[in-house]
Amino acid sequence: MRYVATVKVMPKKTVLDPQGSAVKGALLDLGYGGVKDVRIGKNIRVEMEAPSKSAARALVEEMARKILSNPVIEEFEFAVIPMDSSGEGAGGIAP
Amino acid sequence: MRYVATVKVMPKKTVLDPQGSAVKGALLDLGYGGVKDVRIGKNIRVEMEAPSKSAARALVEEMARKILSNPVIEEFEFAVIPMDSSGEGAGGIAP
Repeated sequence: MRYVATVKVMPKKTVLDPQGSAVKGALLDLGYGGVKDVRIGKNIRVEMEAPSKSAARALVEEMARKILSNPVIEEFEFAVIPMDSSGEGAGGIAP
Repeated sequence: MRYVATVKVMPKKTVLDPQGSAVKGALLDLGYGGVKDVRIGKNIRVEMEAPSKSAARALVEEMARKILSNPVIEEFEFAVIPMDSSGEGAGGIAP
């Protein structure tokens, strides 16, 4: 069965995020004075075949830990949902 | 009041995603044969002050449309939640 996994990888709170700092500066310069902090990470969408949702979750957890993130400076979380017949995970670019 | 917005920016389906293709190739090479497609986008977390949740949503939608995404090649979605007293949006790096 086909599943759609979404892995969010973010810089750890203790790690500097120069890309986020640059975007924060740009937003403040452009008049968005309410902005207090910006952090930028990755959103990785993986379509995969797996025999079950639990098998898919185990594979995605391993991929995220070993390959998709750098555990020294990043943290990740993920979600796995069955792919519906239209070829999309429910919710467009979500979850 | 302080809010935490999460903006997910993904390449449009019709746009080539070379970074996703490279990661897909790496996953297949490393033995994850079930992987069918990989797309990589950004996950942007914005902490902000706003008078209300609806005001925060309006600001975030404008930022995402004008600055955080390129509407020619990317699509975005976002969520806004009140920041809790611990300094975190509920769910760690979620939503």
